[in-house]
Amino acid sequence: MESKLLLHMNSGKGERSYANNSMLQRKLMIKGKHILEETITRFYSNYSPSCMKVADLGCSVGPNTLLVISNIIDIVDTTCTRLNQEPPTFQFYLNDLFGNDFNTTFKSLPDFYKRLDEDKGHKFGSCFINATPGSFHGRLFPNNSINLFHSANSLHWLSQDPLLEFTKEAESFNKGHCHIVSTSPPAVYQAYLKQFQQDFKFFLKSRSEELVPGGAMVLLFLGKNKTHRRTGWEIISLVLNDMLLEVNNNFFNQLITIGVS
Amino acid sequence: MESKLLLHMNSGKGERSYANNSMLQRKLMIKGKHILEETITRFYSNYSPSCMKVADLGCSVGPNTLLVISNIIDIVDTTCTRLNQEPPTFQFYLNDLFGNDFNTTFKSLPDFYKRLDEDKGHKFGSCFINATPGSFHGRLFPNNSINLFHSANSLHWLSQDPLLEFTKEAESFNKGHCHIVSTSPPAVYQAYLKQFQQDFKFFLKSRSEELVPGGAMVLLFLGKNKTHRRTGWEIISLVLNDMLLEVNNNFFNQLITIGVS
Repeated sequence: MESKLLLHMNSGKGERSYANNSMLQRKLMIKGKHILEETITRFYSNYSPSCMKVADLGCSVGPNTLLVISNIIDIVDTTCTRLNQEPPTFQFYLNDLFGNDFNTTFKSLPDFYKRLDEDKGHKFGSCFINATPGSFHGRLFPNNSINLFHSANSLHWLSQDPLLEFTKEAESFNKGHCHIVSTSPPAVYQAYLKQFQQDFKFFLKSRSEELVPGGAMVLLFLGKNKTHRRTGWEIISLVLNDMLLEVNNNFFNQLITIGVS
Repeated sequence: MESKLLLHMNSGKGERSYANNSMLQRKLMIKGKHILEETITRFYSNYSPSCMKVADLGCSVGPNTLLVISNIIDIVDTTCTRLNQEPPTFQFYLNDLFGNDFNTTFKSLPDFYKRLDEDKGHKFGSCFINATPGSFHGRLFPNNSINLFHSANSLHWLSQDPLLEFTKEAESFNKGHCHIVSTSPPAVYQAYLKQFQQDFKFFLKSRSEELVPGGAMVLLFLGKNKTHRRTGWEIISLVLNDMLLEVNNNFFNQLITIGVS
């Protein structure tokens, strides 16, 4: 539970915040918007709920969080207009781990509601936004309670380090990387794959219980082919690993200082 | 909307935080627990939902926030055992204004879930906790979506300063207080009463649309009799007013500095 509490994107709106460093994720969401459109159109061909309950899993913090909401409202509105139907009430659930900076997102909601009212003519009160903190590798909602699940750029996060089972050999095993790299031996690939399969199984099992019959799910995440080529991720992996070592060293230095004093 | 964003209890867990200075509110909640018990017993005599949806309005931050949840789970569990029924799944919605420190509450949830599991034998997953930021003087949830509303020590907060209509005379009118005091003239009493009546009307109208038929509502808040006696609130009122004046003075001083440079 501890790692699920501690892990989060960089909070706030500062220079180094996730909110100001998530352009890549935004581009991927825009690129995948047509999948959301197709899914919602298909959803509406079978079912028109009076209240559309949508959960965004791994929402993080920043403009992308609210972009998901306005995209979905936009697509549903267009679909309803085409079908000559009243748009539904929306109830959104923004999910991320317990340590995520939901406060920053909440503070931007009054402006968001105002823009929604101006842009789309929605009366205030027809869109209700909630937060649901917790791990999407487990249950988050009651049975049969969500019409549409959405998750973008989040499912590649694993529930735990896949190399844990290798104990002390792990560091040399993957040459200090905390990610698959071009030089990783097959056992590392297997360990990451096994962890992802296990996590994804728990993810799908949970969502299958939470999804209303006839509901839909849109999952956007990066895949990896088998070509072993060096990528930017390896550099990031090395930097992250250095930072981790630095934190550990500081921690042990502090322990030594306490021991001496 | 701006005041609804800015107002909040003191964040975090520090010495001056609301979390560490809300013993009075805790005592009132404990004192009113029997009302919650009677209400839930009456609720269960008519209806047993498979998922009990509960909203706590004006939840703030700190141990009281989670005390409400464990009290309600406790009472429902006892009631179900007495009626020989399976306990329901719980879905809680913690509500407060947009500026409330929900992050601190969320960070305490892993420990809360752990204790819940140990104390009450609840499997993880049978209690889902969400946050719903916004003003309870307006709509917060879709129609017919909440089984039980709870609000303790919150409804005395008004949506705006009742003396606004008195413009510049207000300060001298209520002798600098931001609260009814023993020396307040009848017009101040009337203004506060009128604002409360208007706010409470909007509150009840919203809840009546959101409450599932057969649902229940428990509202605990301090009242005031007509005896004009000096209370501790007057001292607090004066201190708050001084702080407000200080902020205003600093603001104008800054404006003057900018003007000169």
